[in-house]
Amino acid sequence: VVNWFRRQTQRVVVPRLHSRDEAFAGVSRVELAELTPDLLPYLAQAAYLQLTVFELLSEVVTDAPTVGAKEAISRVAGYSLDKQHKLVAELQRIKGTDAGDAMQPYAARIDAYRAGTRGATWAEALTSAYVTAGLLDDFYRRVAVGLPADASRRVLEIYDAEDGESILVDQLRSAIEADPKLASPLALWGRRLVGDTLLIARSALALPTDGHSEEERLEPVFTELIAAHTRRMDALGLTA
Amino acid sequence: VVNWFRRQTQRVVVPRLHSRDEAFAGVSRVELAELTPDLLPYLAQAAYLQLTVFELLSEVVTDAPTVGAKEAISRVAGYSLDKQHKLVAELQRIKGTDAGDAMQPYAARIDAYRAGTRGATWAEALTSAYVTAGLLDDFYRRVAVGLPADASRRVLEIYDAEDGESILVDQLRSAIEADPKLASPLALWGRRLVGDTLLIARSALALPTDGHSEEERLEPVFTELIAAHTRRMDALGLTA
Repeated sequence: VVNWFRRQTQRVVVPRLHSRDEAFAGVSRVELAELTPDLLPYLAQAAYLQLTVFELLSEVVTDAPTVGAKEAISRVAGYSLDKQHKLVAELQRIKGTDAGDAMQPYAARIDAYRAGTRGATWAEALTSAYVTAGLLDDFYRRVAVGLPADASRRVLEIYDAEDGESILVDQLRSAIEADPKLASPLALWGRRLVGDTLLIARSALALPTDGHSEEERLEPVFTELIAAHTRRMDALGLTA
Repeated sequence: VVNWFRRQTQRVVVPRLHSRDEAFAGVSRVELAELTPDLLPYLAQAAYLQLTVFELLSEVVTDAPTVGAKEAISRVAGYSLDKQHKLVAELQRIKGTDAGDAMQPYAARIDAYRAGTRGATWAEALTSAYVTAGLLDDFYRRVAVGLPADASRRVLEIYDAEDGESILVDQLRSAIEADPKLASPLALWGRRLVGDTLLIARSALALPTDGHSEEERLEPVFTELIAAHTRRMDALGLTA
């Protein structure tokens, strides 16, 4: 029986980016900047999404099967919270901005996204934390190119800080090794996560309602995001 | 009708300590040192309890009724996690110690304590985070006097760091102001929390099984802890 959900010897051939900057190369970098929202909605959505990533990670800490796993994942929750607080600090640099008020308009939609991507098991929640944080970081890093130069530089520094991704990979690989039956449902779960996450990402952009040409502009960006997602699933030995 | 759960004009007269050091003054400081466990069990229990405080705070973040409350309480969760990571770093200074393995023996008892002190509502969970973290910090600070001098100094620094307590007080006062009917159940809930928390604290000490004289030694310490707890409830306008 060929288990197409799990790859251990064969791996997908995906062009690997040698640095994050290369991800911005070419056409998509320039054109995406035109879809970048204003600084306030950019930061408000990024910060609220980051808060939900933290909340998800903290649930994964609480439900972890061993104290060692709790301890390890709590590091990732800490990185996530640091990032969120830095995004909020950027939000508060904008005069007269209350962070809570700024995030509030996006709360209902993002809460619904979070409820749909929480997962039914610990392994699913851990996969969500890994996959959605990776996709969202990639997306917000790319969109940041269209922000005012100073803010753009600071936001990229925030997204380039240590995020503990390798800790999540280690935990997920251990979970799958301990119970290989997890591979198939987690591979499917990963697909669901991409769909939902790209939708919430898309909704953050400054898209005109009749924007057919914008859809074309977005396509190469989403292709890049999905390629990065494929590498992330590949690191787990799972198909994307 | 006299609402004895809530005090707004009359306040309990409790001697206020002018600094944390004064709490160590007198007989109890010397005698408690004899009940201080070895460094490894001290740190392992303190770190695991701190992890559960963080988990509780992160649930309070997730369930917060407004984005502003989420954002504010996430700061406290961050302080709590920093403290936990510093306690784990101390644990890892002890040669050959794996933090997860060191904490594991205490997990079942502390998890049961946590399940019993979680609370049924957001306001109860928020009260728990405030009351139990306050009591546990006070307790572990006092017990630290019996640790080896270097470790004792570093541990006291960890416990003296910013903990965001005033943020929790603000949130709780707002919640009670918005819904005064909360005062009575929260005052009762506070009593339950003291009982459970002093029991879990007591179980961390190096008590001989037939320790009648140790009970006497503990009494002034618990009296101090309860006095500090009374001041904490008083800050909410609630009876302790």
